[in-house]
Amino acid sequence: MEPLTLHILGCGSARPTHKHNPSSQVLDCRSKLFMIDCGEGTQVAFTRSRLSMNRLGHVFISHNHGDHVFGLPGLVCTMALMGRTADLHIHAPEEVRPLLELVERHYCEYLGYRLLFHPVDTTSHQLIHEDRSLEVWTLPLRHRVPCCGYLFREKPLLPHIRRDMIDAFQIPFSQINNIKNGSGWTTPDGTFLPHEKLTTPAHPSRSFAYCSDTLFTPSLAPLLKNVTLLYHEATYPHEMEPRARQHAHSTASQAARLAQAAQVARLCIGHYSASIDDENLLLQEAQAIFPHTILAQEGMHIQL
Amino acid sequence: MEPLTLHILGCGSARPTHKHNPSSQVLDCRSKLFMIDCGEGTQVAFTRSRLSMNRLGHVFISHNHGDHVFGLPGLVCTMALMGRTADLHIHAPEEVRPLLELVERHYCEYLGYRLLFHPVDTTSHQLIHEDRSLEVWTLPLRHRVPCCGYLFREKPLLPHIRRDMIDAFQIPFSQINNIKNGSGWTTPDGTFLPHEKLTTPAHPSRSFAYCSDTLFTPSLAPLLKNVTLLYHEATYPHEMEPRARQHAHSTASQAARLAQAAQVARLCIGHYSASIDDENLLLQEAQAIFPHTILAQEGMHIQL
Repeated sequence: MEPLTLHILGCGSARPTHKHNPSSQVLDCRSKLFMIDCGEGTQVAFTRSRLSMNRLGHVFISHNHGDHVFGLPGLVCTMALMGRTADLHIHAPEEVRPLLELVERHYCEYLGYRLLFHPVDTTSHQLIHEDRSLEVWTLPLRHRVPCCGYLFREKPLLPHIRRDMIDAFQIPFSQINNIKNGSGWTTPDGTFLPHEKLTTPAHPSRSFAYCSDTLFTPSLAPLLKNVTLLYHEATYPHEMEPRARQHAHSTASQAARLAQAAQVARLCIGHYSASIDDENLLLQEAQAIFPHTILAQEGMHIQL
Repeated sequence: MEPLTLHILGCGSARPTHKHNPSSQVLDCRSKLFMIDCGEGTQVAFTRSRLSMNRLGHVFISHNHGDHVFGLPGLVCTMALMGRTADLHIHAPEEVRPLLELVERHYCEYLGYRLLFHPVDTTSHQLIHEDRSLEVWTLPLRHRVPCCGYLFREKPLLPHIRRDMIDAFQIPFSQINNIKNGSGWTTPDGTFLPHEKLTTPAHPSRSFAYCSDTLFTPSLAPLLKNVTLLYHEATYPHEMEPRARQHAHSTASQAARLAQAAQVARLCIGHYSASIDDENLLLQEAQAIFPHTILAQEGMHIQL
C-alpha cells in the first residue's frame, strides 16, 4: 500500500508561542502534496519537513483568520522566486481573495506561474477537487467567520494480484491490469477463473478529515463516519468550555465525543490555546472518552 | 550612560533558510523600542528576545519587499489580540500602505489601538521622528523599488555632575538639574563656580544607521559620518558583484568600503544570500578593508 502521510507543520492557535507554529498541515498522497491552512512561518516549517514545494499543487484554507493565512504571502512569493512554473490552486472561502490579489499585485515581481483561486462554499458538504487517487470534500464548520474543514478520501484501491495463481496458470503479464480492474481469465483448456480467485481484496481506502476552527458540531458525525484520521481542534480543556463557546472553539472532550460518535479510527487534537501549559491534560481528557487520541506536535508525520 | 542596544531578529534575505529569519531589528533606547523592518516570523523572534510589545511604539520599514514586511500582519493582529491600546506608528514608503489597509480592514476583529501610517520620502535625507532622546532620519537608498535606510541619532546628552564638587561646596540637590543643563553656582560667600568646574563632559551621542537593501552607494558616506554602528547589507561576496549589481544589492567589500569612507566606529553586515554557505568568508572579506566589522546573527544584542 502506498504511504499516505500527514505532516503537522503547526498546531498552535492565534496567540504566538515559542512551542507552536500557527496552523498548517500537509497531506502527502502518492507524490502529490496537499496543504491545509498556512499560518505565518509555514514556508520555513514546510522546508524543515524536507518536503518539496514542486510537489505542492493545492492549498486548502479553512477560514480567513491570520493564524491560518498569514503564511500565504511568503509561500506564494518564495515559489515565484524559486522559478515555479506549475499552477498553484488555492481553495478558500471568498474572504481570502483580497489577500491573494494584494500579494499578486504588489509583491510578485516575477510570478512565473498561475495562482488560481477557487472560492469554496463553507455552508455545504461538496466535492471540490479530485484526481486519479483522491477526492477532497468540504465540511461545513461553525466559527466566527465563514469556515470549513476538508475531507480527503482515497478513491477505491485495486485488489492485489495472487502471484501464486498467476504462476500456476501461467497467466501472461499483459493481463494483470485487466484482472486487477475486475476481469477473470480463461485458461488455454477453456477453464474460466473468476476475478475473485485471482485476487485478494484491496486495502480499504483511507481518509483524513481536518476540522479547525469550529464550535462543537455533533451534526458532523455522519460526514466523518469511519475516517482513518480525524484532526480536530481542541483549543481548550473542558473546564474552559464557556470560553470555547464564546470564541467559537471546541474543547478536548468535545473533539473526543465527535470522534466517538463518528467511529473514526484515530483522533489527533491540536490548535492549542497559548494559555495551556501542559497539553497532556488535553490528551488525557480526550482519551478518557476516545482512547485512540494523539496530540499534534510540529514535525510529526502520521502514517494513515 | 543608559544602554542603547540593537537586537538582531533576522538577517537573512528573500529566500528562506533554516539558519536565518528575514530582516528585522529592534533598537532599544531608554525604555522605548524602535523596530526596523518586519519580515515573516518577526513577532516570534521578537518575543524570543524577551522584548515587550508594550514598549514598541514605532516601526520603520525600508521598502515593500516581502522579506521586509510580511511579518507586519501578524504583529499588528497579535497586538490587537493582546489588548493593546497605545498608538502604533508605521513609517514606510507609500507602497506599504495597501498591506496595512488590508490587515486593518479584513484581519483585526478588535483593533483597540490606532495604527498610524506615515509615508516616508525615500529620495531625501529628512528628519521623520524625534522624541526627548532620539532623532530618526531617512537615508536614501537605491534598490529595485523605493527604499530608504534609517539613521537613529541620540540627542546631545547632559554632562556628568562632579560629586566631589557638590560635596565640597554643599550645593543643594535642587540645583543639580540646573547645573547639568548649563548653569554655574554661586557659593554663600559669593564665589562663582562655572558650569565647567562642576561637571565632566557628557558622553558623546551615539548613532545607528540601517542600510538595507541597497546598491553600493558611496555618496551615503557624508550622511553616515562617524556613526557608532552601521548595519549594512552584504548579500553577496565580492566575486558575485555582477549579481549584486543586477539585483540592486551590495557585496561585503562594498559595505566595508562605505564604512571606511564614513569612518564609522563599527560595521555589522547581514542580509545574507541563501546561496552563501559560510558567512565567515563575507566577514573576512569585509575585515580586510574595515577591521571593525562583525557578522549579524539572530538573537544577537549589540551594545552601542
